[in-house]
Amino acid sequence: MAYKLYYYDGRGYAEPIRMILSYGGVDFEDIRAPMFPIPQPLPADIKAKSTWGQVPFIEFDGKKLNQSLAITRYFAKKFDLVGSNEFEAAQCDEYVDTVVDYVKAWFPLVMEQDAEKLKKMEEEVTKSSREKYLSKFNAIILENGGQFLVGKKMTWADIYFAQALNNGELIHGTKFTEEYPGLKAMYDNVFNTPAIKKWVKGRPSTKF
Amino acid sequence: MAYKLYYYDGRGYAEPIRMILSYGGVDFEDIRAPMFPIPQPLPADIKAKSTWGQVPFIEFDGKKLNQSLAITRYFAKKFDLVGSNEFEAAQCDEYVDTVVDYVKAWFPLVMEQDAEKLKKMEEEVTKSSREKYLSKFNAIILENGGQFLVGKKMTWADIYFAQALNNGELIHGTKFTEEYPGLKAMYDNVFNTPAIKKWVKGRPSTKF
Repeated sequence: MAYKLYYYDGRGYAEPIRMILSYGGVDFEDIRAPMFPIPQPLPADIKAKSTWGQVPFIEFDGKKLNQSLAITRYFAKKFDLVGSNEFEAAQCDEYVDTVVDYVKAWFPLVMEQDAEKLKKMEEEVTKSSREKYLSKFNAIILENGGQFLVGKKMTWADIYFAQALNNGELIHGTKFTEEYPGLKAMYDNVFNTPAIKKWVKGRPSTKF
Repeated sequence: MAYKLYYYDGRGYAEPIRMILSYGGVDFEDIRAPMFPIPQPLPADIKAKSTWGQVPFIEFDGKKLNQSLAITRYFAKKFDLVGSNEFEAAQCDEYVDTVVDYVKAWFPLVMEQDAEKLKKMEEEVTKSSREKYLSKFNAIILENGGQFLVGKKMTWADIYFAQALNNGELIHGTKFTEEYPGLKAMYDNVFNTPAIKKWVKGRPSTKF
């Protein structure tokens, strides 16, 4: 079966999908539209194929699925990354949606051109997101045994969060896991998973 | 078992949860914090109970779950509202996330105080969201047999979307389903469901 994943030439909302497809051993076609300058309109052929005029979307088995979280959750379920029961699956959903909130707090920085303003914004968002998200997530992992966000094994919430932290490191140069043993253990669990490690090593190098 | 749902005194992100709990016959405590003037800080006791400093969240059986979509999906699964297979469950997720995008396009209007500006914004968003979302959703329902978004029975995607359309009617006075037979059939299917009809009839009357 052929899998075709459409997104921009960047990690962004598609990278957790790529990581989970790699984790599941799925060979997929990684179709990448130009990203720069932002906002870059989608190529007409990709836009025409999409349902809502946006990426990511994926085609497989005569089917099409849109919306990054819907796609990520679908493959997470397929590869047993949604916890051990329905409540754990819901906890994964809660944490993923909260990581999306965390990531969105960083969005205004992407468009800021003024270096001085950018530095100030970076300091502010770093401070507020540490308080609001990172220390809380760290506590959740520590209370849960110190390795994972949910249950006793890796879930897509770990993959989604680790990718967001890695993305922040690559963009802002800040090692966000350093002060947080729970985050560090969870992050290492994700990126030391052989199939994910292999994907990350071989993936295209992009700014975002 | 006691269910306690915490949100503002409004429909907003909690209303699909309330509708689905009602559909499932769950008797829940509907705890409502004051909403006005927006943005209204959460009462300290509710904020302290929440994990992320925000509502909605729900407590039951010694558990706590946050993030509106995580809560809604959890109860949708419990009451068999996620389609008939994993792909249909993912289609529900896709459509719900797209309804959230549609609803977010209306958010700037809530804060606009200038009546003339508001009227202009309303016209623009009505036009763009009809093109981008309503006509497309209508086509999806018609291609699917004319009654539901996904599969051959009601799912939480129908409930979520119907609630958003109803919310738009209540706030803006526009009957969004009028030109779209698919949307109208889906909307009527949701609001004619006895347990939902009963909930809507008895719910508090609020602006948002």
